[in-house]
Amino acid sequence: MSPEEFRLAGHELIDWIADYRQRIPDLPVRAQVQPGEVRRALPDEPPQSIDSFATVLADLERTIVPGVTQVQHPMHFGWFPSNASLASVLGDIACSGMGTLGISWESCPALTELEEVVCDWLRQLTGLSDQWHGTIHDTASTACVVALILARERASQFSKNGPGLQGLPAPLVVYSTAQAHSSIAKAVQVAGLGNDNLRMIAEDPDTRAMLPAALQEAITQDLHNGRTPAAIVCSVGATGTTAMDPVQAIADIANEHGIWLHVDAAMAGSAMLLPECRHLWAGVEQADSIAWNPHKWMGTILDTALFYVKDVEHLERVMSTNPAYLRSTADGEVTQYRDWGIPLGRRFRALKLWFHLRLDGLEAIQTRLRRDLDNARWLQNQVEQTEGWQVVAPVSLQTVCVRHTPRTKNGSPLTGDELDRYTLGWVEAINASGAAFLSPSVLDERWMVRVSIGVEGTTREHVEQLWALMRHASSTQSISL
Amino acid sequence: MSPEEFRLAGHELIDWIADYRQRIPDLPVRAQVQPGEVRRALPDEPPQSIDSFATVLADLERTIVPGVTQVQHPMHFGWFPSNASLASVLGDIACSGMGTLGISWESCPALTELEEVVCDWLRQLTGLSDQWHGTIHDTASTACVVALILARERASQFSKNGPGLQGLPAPLVVYSTAQAHSSIAKAVQVAGLGNDNLRMIAEDPDTRAMLPAALQEAITQDLHNGRTPAAIVCSVGATGTTAMDPVQAIADIANEHGIWLHVDAAMAGSAMLLPECRHLWAGVEQADSIAWNPHKWMGTILDTALFYVKDVEHLERVMSTNPAYLRSTADGEVTQYRDWGIPLGRRFRALKLWFHLRLDGLEAIQTRLRRDLDNARWLQNQVEQTEGWQVVAPVSLQTVCVRHTPRTKNGSPLTGDELDRYTLGWVEAINASGAAFLSPSVLDERWMVRVSIGVEGTTREHVEQLWALMRHASSTQSISL
Repeated sequence: MSPEEFRLAGHELIDWIADYRQRIPDLPVRAQVQPGEVRRALPDEPPQSIDSFATVLADLERTIVPGVTQVQHPMHFGWFPSNASLASVLGDIACSGMGTLGISWESCPALTELEEVVCDWLRQLTGLSDQWHGTIHDTASTACVVALILARERASQFSKNGPGLQGLPAPLVVYSTAQAHSSIAKAVQVAGLGNDNLRMIAEDPDTRAMLPAALQEAITQDLHNGRTPAAIVCSVGATGTTAMDPVQAIADIANEHGIWLHVDAAMAGSAMLLPECRHLWAGVEQADSIAWNPHKWMGTILDTALFYVKDVEHLERVMSTNPAYLRSTADGEVTQYRDWGIPLGRRFRALKLWFHLRLDGLEAIQTRLRRDLDNARWLQNQVEQTEGWQVVAPVSLQTVCVRHTPRTKNGSPLTGDELDRYTLGWVEAINASGAAFLSPSVLDERWMVRVSIGVEGTTREHVEQLWALMRHASSTQSISL
Repeated sequence: MSPEEFRLAGHELIDWIADYRQRIPDLPVRAQVQPGEVRRALPDEPPQSIDSFATVLADLERTIVPGVTQVQHPMHFGWFPSNASLASVLGDIACSGMGTLGISWESCPALTELEEVVCDWLRQLTGLSDQWHGTIHDTASTACVVALILARERASQFSKNGPGLQGLPAPLVVYSTAQAHSSIAKAVQVAGLGNDNLRMIAEDPDTRAMLPAALQEAITQDLHNGRTPAAIVCSVGATGTTAMDPVQAIADIANEHGIWLHVDAAMAGSAMLLPECRHLWAGVEQADSIAWNPHKWMGTILDTALFYVKDVEHLERVMSTNPAYLRSTADGEVTQYRDWGIPLGRRFRALKLWFHLRLDGLEAIQTRLRRDLDNARWLQNQVEQTEGWQVVAPVSLQTVCVRHTPRTKNGSPLTGDELDRYTLGWVEAINASGAAFLSPSVLDERWMVRVSIGVEGTTREHVEQLWALMRHASSTQSISL
């Protein structure tokens, strides 16, 4: 395709995207397709001839759009917000259009240096000191794998350069909680450490936060048993209930024992753009690594996961490769981001953050975040004041975890598996309708419903609509007994 | 930013991209900036107010463009081609514009099912049987990490669910060659296996291909020493010289011993779109996993790395997580790509391949690949027929590895460190001029120069120009003695 053909098609596509974004509020939130429906609408065999751009765009509309769950929909309250602000989309389009390649500084100096600059801007905007140095990963899951590898190599005196984990006298152990994101357990497995060496530390039953005393006890126990405590993963805004582990107390323990402390603030990092929220990760300066995702609540389009470390020398020593075909005269004077993560090649992701911060600006982003915090408090109040409804976890940010407990015919509250079926029933009724979307999750072995507020377009009015939908769906849900 | 503001800015950006792509041939190939130059042109502190789109676009032009090494330039012959065809760019723009989220089938059914379909199309187009199932990773580096984890878990009976590598009686061993991509050694380290357990198998001194007899011997030796051969990484188009390991012979050995065989065809996978090239990976059907990058020679924009496995059950058993907050009624009926790799969240990458195949089409891609193969053969002939020039490795695809060996004053050929300085001197003269770009690399402990042909816009004329530049640069390079 020539640049002139691209120009024509590109203009059509921009109009299509602008129209699409405008009509998202009219689309069902959850895709209304059945498993296999999109696949069956597509040819089994690859195309034998080429199509016009108009044909492809028509297929995008007809085949793909109905299969999209609209996470940009103002009535989307599922998982965590996954905002894709149009300002950041422009930066992503610039990235695609330029077709750059990041495999070394030399392959695109601007890609490396803008990434350094925007990571440093975000460091400043979240109140971190200048001892932190950042990069952009695809997701916080990948960042966690890197963090655990950094911990593993520090605790094992660079076992990677020798026998690996296979030659260690004392097994390395990782500490986290059951509230932590699934990527933590996965990272433990990826890094070769094994489930047996992941300790799920007890949580405070009210806040769901890690109990420092229980952490200290587990470490003592492991040391006593000849194991080597290697890493603690501390969640700031854990996925289930946005639980906040006490960073300061955990950091004190980590520092005392020389254990690597990784702070997973994938969701809550965005909140640190608000000075009034920074107390939530007090102590973070004593950690060894931090990950958080502008591609969640802040709204820089996926994939934009920030990863900060203090000890860059250690990072590069662990993750670097220096093949002959990538050497250049600039080596030693520049950052080689290939030595900061797993993939060699990288896209020009920094443009998304650059465009987002310059076109939308910090103030607008902060205003939106505060709006969402207010809306969550409003919903929390509504739920707390309504008979039969409970807020089941502290509302530390913008996610409200709720349960409705109706009374059975004999007047006692519904419990057990019946309550689970009832909960899943009313939330599925809402999700299936397409009018709104919520994700159920499990707490204390029972289903509850997470209302995660924070889509760019979600106003108080939408939260009010949702609350009405929730009351209606639950009141019409039959109670199976 | 509202959709209407996006529409206006988007049209400007599309025009900018189209113009940019048109003028790439007039830009220097290698960025002419010094280390730190781009960074110093950017503010140290984050923006305090917002800018107009025109201002940001002007900064993109003024600050970023001079810092871009133009890998889409027709005179770019460095590393491997990193084509970003404009047809695939449109697919990437659609991905960004829609702002979808892939964390489960339910979060975007179309994202999952289109990925299944295009991976299957590419399977067919590269002549693979229907026992292969594919997904898209960011890079072949990441795919290799996953492959080694799959191998590790098969060989260790799912040690991840127990003590990890830390409890294995016999160390697991990986086999590859020194020609293999740097990501192989890195993946061995990431997976916790350790350098001591990576065997660099001897190569044929002419073809640089792995010697099956040497592989067999190393395996026998390791078994004798109580170690467990776990994985073989076989390169089809290794990075240094595009060496082709003999897949069939290696697969026979792998199968005999039940060793996981990963075929790294990151570069050469594109060649398999040409039926006449498929003999180069004969035996591939017996492998356990394959990775190749449409984002290289084929030209689907980065990041598009395909990863195929046969045993999906094993893959999912190793890589899956099933947190409560991601469960849905579709579980069990659909593919959950989060269980096929490391990151949880994924972009709608399949759109790039879909647009590329439908708008450019297979035939045009095949024609271009054949053009590049012809151009490489032409250059090889020129080099071979010219006094003082040598082709130093077999030209198996589109990369020609060359060296020029001038004579010293006393008539003997330049050797040793002087030859290295001379080689690096003339190639740096070309690269510094901005007229063309080549990457030097090391072969037999001496520098040589890789001419990797295959940028979308590179015609015979450009290769002729390059050859003239190479002769001129070498002839004017002083010989230090």
